[in-house]
Amino acid sequence: MLLNETIFPLGNVSEEVSKHALADMTDPYAHDPKRHKVLHVHTEKPFNGEPPAGLLIEQFYTPNDIFYVRNHLPVPEVDLETYELEVEIENIDKIKKLNFADILKLPKYTVSATLMCAGNRRSEMNKVKEVKGLNWGASSIGNATWTGVRLVDVLKLIGVDDNTKEYSHVHFEGLDRDTASNLYTVSIPLSKAVNKDGDVLLAYEMNGQPISRDHGFPIRVIVPGTVGARNVKWLGRILIAKDECQSHWQQKDYKGVPPSADPSRINLSKLASIQDLPVISAICKPSNEEVVKVENGFITVKGYAWSGGGRKIIRVDLTTDGGKEWHVANFDHQIDHESPRHWSWTLWTAKVPVSKGQKTVEVWAKAIDSSYNSQPDTIDNIWNYRGFLNNAFHRIRVNLTF
Amino acid sequence: MLLNETIFPLGNVSEEVSKHALADMTDPYAHDPKRHKVLHVHTEKPFNGEPPAGLLIEQFYTPNDIFYVRNHLPVPEVDLETYELEVEIENIDKIKKLNFADILKLPKYTVSATLMCAGNRRSEMNKVKEVKGLNWGASSIGNATWTGVRLVDVLKLIGVDDNTKEYSHVHFEGLDRDTASNLYTVSIPLSKAVNKDGDVLLAYEMNGQPISRDHGFPIRVIVPGTVGARNVKWLGRILIAKDECQSHWQQKDYKGVPPSADPSRINLSKLASIQDLPVISAICKPSNEEVVKVENGFITVKGYAWSGGGRKIIRVDLTTDGGKEWHVANFDHQIDHESPRHWSWTLWTAKVPVSKGQKTVEVWAKAIDSSYNSQPDTIDNIWNYRGFLNNAFHRIRVNLTF
Repeated sequence: MLLNETIFPLGNVSEEVSKHALADMTDPYAHDPKRHKVLHVHTEKPFNGEPPAGLLIEQFYTPNDIFYVRNHLPVPEVDLETYELEVEIENIDKIKKLNFADILKLPKYTVSATLMCAGNRRSEMNKVKEVKGLNWGASSIGNATWTGVRLVDVLKLIGVDDNTKEYSHVHFEGLDRDTASNLYTVSIPLSKAVNKDGDVLLAYEMNGQPISRDHGFPIRVIVPGTVGARNVKWLGRILIAKDECQSHWQQKDYKGVPPSADPSRINLSKLASIQDLPVISAICKPSNEEVVKVENGFITVKGYAWSGGGRKIIRVDLTTDGGKEWHVANFDHQIDHESPRHWSWTLWTAKVPVSKGQKTVEVWAKAIDSSYNSQPDTIDNIWNYRGFLNNAFHRIRVNLTF
Repeated sequence: MLLNETIFPLGNVSEEVSKHALADMTDPYAHDPKRHKVLHVHTEKPFNGEPPAGLLIEQFYTPNDIFYVRNHLPVPEVDLETYELEVEIENIDKIKKLNFADILKLPKYTVSATLMCAGNRRSEMNKVKEVKGLNWGASSIGNATWTGVRLVDVLKLIGVDDNTKEYSHVHFEGLDRDTASNLYTVSIPLSKAVNKDGDVLLAYEMNGQPISRDHGFPIRVIVPGTVGARNVKWLGRILIAKDECQSHWQQKDYKGVPPSADPSRINLSKLASIQDLPVISAICKPSNEEVVKVENGFITVKGYAWSGGGRKIIRVDLTTDGGKEWHVANFDHQIDHESPRHWSWTLWTAKVPVSKGQKTVEVWAKAIDSSYNSQPDTIDNIWNYRGFLNNAFHRIRVNLTF
């Protein structure tokens, strides 16, 4: 888009302001916030980035500024003074409007929960055969405490609770809009929203700080155990509806596609939306191809494991001999909540044996959750052209020094 | 044990009666009911048997007389006139006793749910490397409607509901006892029991008939989505407790054991009990090694798929070329309930291609559930010495005729 000089006569403003004005007109992303330089950037506009895996697992609660950012659209600028959240029921002519102060008046809750992008670990799938989507490593996941009000308390204000039978879905609309002015909108099943044990929050704090612009200021819906894409940032509207949201993001994106699907013929709308996620793990230290020192015949590996739907991780297994022997990892940090309300990841460490004189070793990790679901062995058999849901064994090869 | 002739002088009774009396004294299993001859028997005493897989999937609701039987102990003889169910809270000196008529007075509910033994498909694991336990095929699973009263309604009678915080487990005690007079007892988390969407029933009917002796007459606890072993037959007592049940069956059995665990050293009590089950599928028709007619380059395969925790099956994939191409099965029967309250299995059919002149073909099946968990590729990496939870791809080899 070209600058319209009749509107912004450059000669009349300082260079700083003129640059800003120029950006404003030509680039919807000009007002995006600054990001931490450590993030590995997949796209600048919209911004999508993730921290290095080794840094990611240094803390149980991921620092806000290195938490992966998955934006679909420009970051909206929201003024707290004028912010309003609309809460309504489909075809019922009565809208509840809450300003920020109204929201703060509701009971305050904190939930510890991990968020993960459906494309986490897509880059490994991409190596098997090319897939479509951002080339995420294993760090489009993060764990935080989220503080805000319970969605069940907000829904009560419009008379919706777990006895509501006429509606089946809750739509969440963000304030971020595309060039055609479509707002980012998706939905979750009402059963998750009205279940007080579902722990869905309208969060205004992340790790005890006001939620930042990149993470959804002033309000982000936190749907624990559910794919990142449903955890709508910059929440502007909640709609109780009979049907699933019909947006692009709900109907054409975030679907689990069969391995042999023909992209030109598949009807994505007919597939089940990705909601709660399967069990996953990753080795974060060392990284693939890193040189690792062997101590007394062992190397140390560290990583995370997590499962959707509030299922707790009960075990992480590692092998250095292609599965002949599996070694059980120790948990460094796991919170004490029981399934199906265990929303946070588990950080683990394992010392695994290598043979004398071995120059390289392949290490595999798999996690098991409280429903005893475990990870598929290979990417090959879960490969899909969208590169979603890669929860196969995580495999790295490292070089050894003695 | 020898017959004590002084007590049962054989000369004084008819042959029929004498046989009965003889059995009574020497064999605690003498009063077990008769079973359908089609069941493949793993052990007679206690009785454990399963139907042929091809027969199993002929109906969405498994007929009562061919439903797999997994008994741990002799079938108790219960007199409805004197039957009493005790409901109590640990360390509180107040027992609620319900007779059968009291139970019938509570609101009546019907739930459609699949039950499965944790050892289902153990025989395949046994072929990889010997395991301990009954050598179940793929038919220690069945689907039925269960009618009775909701556990939440019974627990309300003693003041226990989803606001109860002091207790975490519900123990179920059967009326079946071992030679040391220990009653079969196990437990489930209280969160499942007090959740009205958990659909836990005290069932007195199975597929519209009074529940048979082999299946728990007069009352069986149905814990949908949860391993068969917690669905206690011949229910005699319910106990609300702080801790998990300490019985052999809860602490030393029905645990998911790591692949490389040393049976002589493992502390089973420290492992998580098997509760809700992972996603599984099986090809039931044709059977392994069967001769199958190829029609227009395709063969037809049929089977079931199911997942624990109320997770609906969203897809079943099949391959005849080792995973190069995966074909999506059609669903023959799936009920219309949504996750996480989808308790029944899905029956499916697929036509899969074979090459001209091919003499044998290996067919693999895997299912995907609503949390997008899928099955592990191989038994090797989930093998455990107890042979539990074999949910690897189901693989059969069939012989082709053209």
